Amino acid sequence: MSETIRVGLGDRSYDIHVGEGLLAQAGALLAPFARGAVPVVTDSHVAKLHLDPLIASLTRAGIKTVPIVLSPGEGTKSFAGLERLTTELLRANVDRGGLIVALGGGVIGDLAGFAAGVLKRGVDFAQIPTTLLSQVDSSVGGKTAINVPEGKNLIGMFHQPRVVIADIATLKTLPKRELLAGYAEVAKYGALGDAKFFDWLAVNGAKALAGDAAALAHIVAHSCQMKADIVARDERETGERALLNLGHTFGHALEATTGFSDRLLHGEGVAIGTVLAMQLSVKLGLSPAADAARFAKHLKDAGLPASIADIPGPRPGAEALIAAMAHDKKVKDGKLTFVLVKGLGHAFTSRDVPLDAVRAVLSS
Amino acid sequence: MSETIRVGLGDRSYDIHVGEGLLAQAGALLAPFARGAVPVVTDSHVAKLHLDPLIASLTRAGIKTVPIVLSPGEGTKSFAGLERLTTELLRANVDRGGLIVALGGGVIGDLAGFAAGVLKRGVDFAQIPTTLLSQVDSSVGGKTAINVPEGKNLIGMFHQPRVVIADIATLKTLPKRELLAGYAEVAKYGALGDAKFFDWLAVNGAKALAGDAAALAHIVAHSCQMKADIVARDERETGERALLNLGHTFGHALEATTGFSDRLLHGEGVAIGTVLAMQLSVKLGLSPAADAARFAKHLKDAGLPASIADIPGPRPGAEALIAAMAHDKKVKDGKLTFVLVKGLGHAFTSRDVPLDAVRAVLSS
Repeated sequence: MSETIRVGLGDRSYDIHVGEGLLAQAGALLAPFARGAVPVVTDSHVAKLHLDPLIASLTRAGIKTVPIVLSPGEGTKSFAGLERLTTELLRANVDRGGLIVALGGGVIGDLAGFAAGVLKRGVDFAQIPTTLLSQVDSSVGGKTAINVPEGKNLIGMFHQPRVVIADIATLKTLPKRELLAGYAEVAKYGALGDAKFFDWLAVNGAKALAGDAAALAHIVAHSCQMKADIVARDERETGERALLNLGHTFGHALEATTGFSDRLLHGEGVAIGTVLAMQLSVKLGLSPAADAARFAKHLKDAGLPASIADIPGPRPGAEALIAAMAHDKKVKDGKLTFVLVKGLGHAFTSRDVPLDAVRAVLSS
Repeated sequence: MSETIRVGLGDRSYDIHVGEGLLAQAGALLAPFARGAVPVVTDSHVAKLHLDPLIASLTRAGIKTVPIVLSPGEGTKSFAGLERLTTELLRANVDRGGLIVALGGGVIGDLAGFAAGVLKRGVDFAQIPTTLLSQVDSSVGGKTAINVPEGKNLIGMFHQPRVVIADIATLKTLPKRELLAGYAEVAKYGALGDAKFFDWLAVNGAKALAGDAAALAHIVAHSCQMKADIVARDERETGERALLNLGHTFGHALEATTGFSDRLLHGEGVAIGTVLAMQLSVKLGLSPAADAARFAKHLKDAGLPASIADIPGPRPGAEALIAAMAHDKKVKDGKLTFVLVKGLGHAFTSRDVPLDAVRAVLSS
């Protein structure tokens, strides 16, 4: 049983297939796009879990594969990693009509997608995300990137995949903390644009986090549908797409000031950041305090951090966080952009938030 | 006096300004696109000749500049060069609303355009090409790239400039051999799609090569117009744009087999390659022998090489050239693409040229 979400982007439109056990059907789903030998880019951790069944499925469909197994972790998403991967892809003789498959989480998807985008000025790629975070977020919308010492995801491009296959079964192998980190982005979708979905999460979220496949499939499909709708209206993030960054201005600053370390995963930063954005909205008189409190409580109940105080170790101060925000990639013409809410489910962007209000929220 | 050519690409449309002395007007021409401090990317050789007047013009228009001066030569168009340039651009605090200016030949334009395309997933850039080759070819159409050990321009993307300023006066500082190399691409435009333009070149080409500004301006404007028309119809080279590669399959193979060295400049490879493509067309019974001979004679009269025998040093053999062609970036689904002509001015692409005919032309 699977569900298909269409991302409508004209001649760059594509389908996201969501369901349990789709890895076994990957051959059939990728066959329309595969030509020549298909490089499968993954990391050694994911390779152990999912590479053999994927290759078996592709082989059954008559598709030849060239596995390219990279080191796991953010360090691979670098200029050196991009150069190494593109070299391997060139040696695998991928030509302009070829297809590259990315199997793994956000690091693999972002790197392989970027490599596909610049290889011979652009070849097709398919995403097979294996984490909740990448299934609901990074595999939808075509953002690809690498990190540089100056910041995360600062070098990259928009390159849409030809097809995305989200196999819910791969989430069974995810550590609980990573599943939760992905769930933060899911809850964010409710906060930014769908109060009813948040109501559903309030009732069924715990079931999904306990591994219920039907609940997880609903979460992934609904999140992808919301993101797909927004991306279809604003592919290059000149407007509405910025709403997806709810919690991210704060979240990135939290990640930066904790050294992008294991102390705070990206999704955990988004969890705290979304709560802070809602509290900022309350402070500015835009949103009821009850909504922010309800959202924070749901994250806490799920097991996620929901305030700066929940971060282990020394806590970043307000001024350090504000300084980190000034380096955000989304700064345009020197101004910071915040995503705020007019109550749970109604996000909007604002470019004239008084710094004093931000400081007050960070200090409280 | 200047002429403006519009490249019609929907929301990526832009103007190419062609004229003598336009560097002095660059400030006014760039002002609509400039925000914040504008990095001006160039190389140390071009900087000596043209950076001061450009910065003076921008300053008069109230635009702040950050000069970034790179090492001259193909070596800069590498992964290391891209990483270095993007680091400098990040340090210059270019944000998403910013503009990057590329001042120089193809190396600078290709590298700075690529860097702009991937910086924060894409910022605007403007091209100020200072060689004939870049004015008539690489600054039109948005192809950007770097070289890798596996081949030239194998990593890159399509990223259209916001505006192009071709100042004919900068050609006065070009070494004669480089001017001639650019002229090969100009003659190619005649061969591929405009017999009347070739007739004009037969009469006025020598005048342009002697430095006549009006003749040069006509050559640049007409070449840009032809390329702009083709690019507007086929931006991503899925069809007609491939015609611009007339002479390039042979030309690239000649460059590769002579080690991409000073023995054969890119434009010189294109000169010989276009003659070979026309001879191949004759061999296949598609084109009158007189047209190929007339074209070759015009190049020779101008001072360009027009046959493999004109390359100094050991000549590449037919088999080595055929092997080099098999690595061409334009190979799709394992097949070589040749651009052939049905007489001077009528190019078309073919994917089923018998290898024996290619071998015969290369050996004769």
